[in-house]
Amino acid sequence: MALIDLSKQIALGIDIGGTNTKYGFVNHRGEILEKGRIRTDEYEKVEDFIDALYQKISPLMKKHSNQTRLDGIGVGAPNANYYTGTIEQAPNLRWKGIIPFAELMTKKFGLPCKMTNDANAAALGEMMFGAARGMKDFIMMTLGTGVGSGIVSGGSLIYGHDGFAGELGHTIIKPGGRKHWSTGSEGSLEAYASATGIAITAKKMRAEFPDSMLNQYPEEEINSLVVHECAKKGDPTAIEVFRYTGQKLGEALANFVMFSSPEAILLFGGVIKAGDFILKPTKLHMERNLFPIFRNKVKLVFSELDEADAAILGASALVWEK
Amino acid sequence: MALIDLSKQIALGIDIGGTNTKYGFVNHRGEILEKGRIRTDEYEKVEDFIDALYQKISPLMKKHSNQTRLDGIGVGAPNANYYTGTIEQAPNLRWKGIIPFAELMTKKFGLPCKMTNDANAAALGEMMFGAARGMKDFIMMTLGTGVGSGIVSGGSLIYGHDGFAGELGHTIIKPGGRKHWSTGSEGSLEAYASATGIAITAKKMRAEFPDSMLNQYPEEEINSLVVHECAKKGDPTAIEVFRYTGQKLGEALANFVMFSSPEAILLFGGVIKAGDFILKPTKLHMERNLFPIFRNKVKLVFSELDEADAAILGASALVWEK
Repeated sequence: MALIDLSKQIALGIDIGGTNTKYGFVNHRGEILEKGRIRTDEYEKVEDFIDALYQKISPLMKKHSNQTRLDGIGVGAPNANYYTGTIEQAPNLRWKGIIPFAELMTKKFGLPCKMTNDANAAALGEMMFGAARGMKDFIMMTLGTGVGSGIVSGGSLIYGHDGFAGELGHTIIKPGGRKHWSTGSEGSLEAYASATGIAITAKKMRAEFPDSMLNQYPEEEINSLVVHECAKKGDPTAIEVFRYTGQKLGEALANFVMFSSPEAILLFGGVIKAGDFILKPTKLHMERNLFPIFRNKVKLVFSELDEADAAILGASALVWEK
Repeated sequence: MALIDLSKQIALGIDIGGTNTKYGFVNHRGEILEKGRIRTDEYEKVEDFIDALYQKISPLMKKHSNQTRLDGIGVGAPNANYYTGTIEQAPNLRWKGIIPFAELMTKKFGLPCKMTNDANAAALGEMMFGAARGMKDFIMMTLGTGVGSGIVSGGSLIYGHDGFAGELGHTIIKPGGRKHWSTGSEGSLEAYASATGIAITAKKMRAEFPDSMLNQYPEEEINSLVVHECAKKGDPTAIEVFRYTGQKLGEALANFVMFSSPEAILLFGGVIKAGDFILKPTKLHMERNLFPIFRNKVKLVFSELDEADAAILGASALVWEK
């Protein structure tokens, strides 16, 4: 019986964002053999987008065809449905309605194609290549412009009956709280713990404290990076912005722990650049809100994957998901 | 090849509560062939409790041994750990510390024994014998003296890394809200949506509305049954008690839906006797708080199992769980 050389199996991972689409060939060790990107927003029709993607990728497929075996395509995309392989009503893409994306990809590339949303893909990537290796129960929180999540339970992603499980950014953590700029909901986690939410908090707090360093920046430059800069210089208002954000995030995480009792919660995305300024209050308020049997058990850790590559790695992990 | 006659396989289901322990022999059709109960709180030592249980059950085992095959024992108990078969620090039992309950049962009865908490057992019972037959993704909420939950995802119970997943009654739905009478947490779901929470709400509201029928009862008689009686007679305050409770419950359920995207949420326990008085506001506020992709998809239904038997059926279902 011949052993399969796993190092020769590769997957094509594709991460579709509103502006750019990144792709790469990934092997079982999580090495990216080739990568590239095209614009997403230049193509009014999804078929034209897929044609353009194929133009870019097919020469690479040929190049590697002697030495490797391409097992399939994994795609992370907003509002992607795992069960149907469709992208459904994605607000930040130009293709409206329900797009049979996986089917169109398979037709064009002649390869099986699996899809899920970007946060779920990121969770798979962490499980296969990152900080969640060997874990069977964890929650991945992506804290970027928005807040996404992927939940792994018993070694499998939770997809739910319709494929849309794990929208923890939209859970309401403060009923009647801050109105969300696009969904209109009041008091969602995303309204506080995303980079967008942090900027809002910073603008409110600097107005209350005229002495804050944050007042040295024009309105449009206030973002979580600037707040981090000011916090590092010791500005109490900037530090308070992260403390407040960490409190809200920690309270939310406590509820998530009491749902699925994960071994770890992994934090990923631009917001975690703030390091201990956000991690310490998050941990404090998570523990404080936990029912005693859950206390001091859950690891709260930052992702180990390089942010630029994580989406490609995560999408490729879909191909090999059990 | 001989077919196994499933109707002849039986399981012993045991439900341990703080005061009473109920047991029964259950077949694959969910029929209870024998049942009985002993006091839980009379036995200071767990070994004596198990001896007493064996005294009661072993004659029944002999009686059925010719016609049936007893596959094993399933136990639902407070703070029961599925992975280790232990009962850990259960506040309402006399046996303190970590009790190796399943091991003790197997020694005494000579049969495999599986355990989980009562709400998880109830979820399995619904999946095998009740309203969740054929469902792979649902959440079971038990609304009694306390609020418990069992979460099924992809056809399996979510146990989490330590076996304690699914403590949704302890999630905080209103930060800084009502203080819980025993855990001390502020604003937990249990503080509002349990029978105990409803009684507290009723006492507060009747004090505000002297005309309410609820004021015709002495303090100690105010419970969710009395509130239901008054609501049926048209008392606006009693109706408002359930509306308020349903709002809090509905807001919480919306968050749970965005976690695991279930096909249905099953409600079980004394509180649901209030029928539409609680169901309608719960449904309204659940839908109102859902992110659009989840709206008008989730069935909100009452359990179909007889309350007296559900715990035994659920515990027995553990034996046959895949």
